[in-house]
Formats: sequence, C-alpha cells, structure tokens
Amino acid sequence: MQKQLLAVGLALVLGGGYTISAFAQAKPDALVRQRQAVMTLHAKYFGQLGLMNAGKLPYNAEVVARNAGFLDALSQMPWDGFTADTKGEKSRALPEIYGNPSGFKAAQDSYRAAVVKLVAASKGGGEAAVKAAITEVNSNGCGSCHKNFRSQ
Amino acid sequence: MQKQLLAVGLALVLGGGYTISAFAQAKPDALVRQRQAVMTLHAKYFGQLGLMNAGKLPYNAEVVARNAGFLDALSQMPWDGFTADTKGEKSRALPEIYGNPSGFKAAQDSYRAAVVKLVAASKGGGEAAVKAAITEVNSNGCGSCHKNFRSQ
Repeated sequence: MQKQLLAVGLALVLGGGYTISAFAQAKPDALVRQRQAVMTLHAKYFGQLGLMNAGKLPYNAEVVARNAGFLDALSQMPWDGFTADTKGEKSRALPEIYGNPSGFKAAQDSYRAAVVKLVAASKGGGEAAVKAAITEVNSNGCGSCHKNFRSQ
Repeated sequence: MQKQLLAVGLALVLGGGYTISAFAQAKPDALVRQRQAVMTLHAKYFGQLGLMNAGKLPYNAEVVARNAGFLDALSQMPWDGFTADTKGEKSRALPEIYGNPSGFKAAQDSYRAAVVKLVAASKGGGEAAVKAAITEVNSNGCGSCHKNFRSQ
C-alpha cells in the first residue's frame, strides 16, 4: 500500500493540479492489480447470482440485494485502471481497449446500465424481474465486453 | 471464475441447505485471493483519503463521497473469507484470527462502525468532520486490526 500511495503522490507532484482520474495514477503494475482485484470480486458476487439464475443455487432475495449493492460499487471501479501505460503489463486485456476507446466506453456504459437495472430489480422487484436483470448483466454486460476486449 | 463457481456448487451439494455464508464456500486459495482483492481496493480508495487527510492531496469532497461509498461496500466484503480452512494458505493473516474469534469480530465491527461514520460525514459533513472520520477509520479501523491480526 505504501508503494502505491507514494506513486500517487509522485504523479500529482509531477502533473500539477488534479482531477478524479488523476488520483488513480498509480504505477502500471498497481493499476493492473487493482482492476484485476475488481474482477476477482465480480466473480465472487456476480458468480453467486449466476448460479441462482441457472437454478444451481436456491434463490435468495437477501443475498441478491446484498450482492447487487456490492456490484453497484464494483461496476464503477475498474475503468480508470485501463490507462495506456498498462499496455505492457501481463493481463488478458486486448489491444482493442486502446484501439477502440469509444467502443470500450460504450461497453462499460452498457454494463453499468445493466447493473443499475439489477440494483433496482433487487429492491423488491421479485424473482422473475431479478433473474431477467441478471441475464442482462451477463449477456449485455460481462459477455459483450469480455468477448471484444478480453482474450478468452 | 468457472473454477470458483464449481467449488461453490460442490460445497452446496455436499453440505445441503444454504445460508449467506455458505454461498462463500469457495476453495481456500480462492477465498484468500478474494479477501486480498478487497484489501487491494482498500489501498486504492482509502489510500486517496489518507493522502487528503495528510495534506498530500488537495481535499476533494466529490472524491471523498465516491470513495466513502465504495468503502461502504468493501468494508463488508472480506470477513467471510477468513475461514479455518484458509489457515494453510500463504497470507499475512495471523493465527490470532482463529485463536481469538471474538476479538477479530470486534475489530471488524469497530472498522465497520468507523466507515459508517465516514460515509455519513462525506454527505455534506464538511472537511473537518470528514478528516476526523478518516483519522478514525485509519486508527480504530485499519490500524487496530492490522496490528493484532496481520503480520507487519
């Protein structure tokens, strides 16, 4: 952590001024570690919802609401970690992320919109509505972005 | 992700029934990876607040509110990953976690309470109140738990 904090401080001293995105200017390896951490937690919390949707876990509205709340936060986290200086780091990120930034942004927005719908459905929307929302997160969110911007 | 999902499914088939915590019964190495992912993201988002508190980053109420919201979610995530079967995994977790479960739970609750205060302060509480809350998260939250339950 100390190393990351120093990197952030240095970037700001060198760059002058600040923006929200400037706060995230850790070193490339730290950025990759952070965005991969977000994906690890997606696997934990969206994974449970996927199993419920597939009938492999009993449906549990309390867990759905908790996990949807966590995904509301997680779905906003990884994007500022895909900076151009991370291209050389080992990861499954494809060059299309940097070659097609508007497409990548559209995929982010599509995913985020699907999560917002899931969060809304999880607040008393009932099992059918929640499951439809989980399906949409999976296909229009995770799926479309991973297909086009992540190696399989 | 596929591997984790299979592990979850298997645990449920073997165990029968379910609870919220049962959903988290991934394999020990996955549990450690997940809880470490949470800490990586604490470093990202609480790190920025720590720098603001120390005057090393300009105070920015918008970033404070965003990060406090993220910490609200993150502060609830790691605890179900400290299961007894993770003792043998490589990590900085100390044996006191398992030898003193009530103390570990009290440290979690103390940290969580400090984050809840930070979230409240971040909603228009003003810079002085926010900085006091950041200090409390650091000392009564991160600090006390890391001192007693994590190797330095």
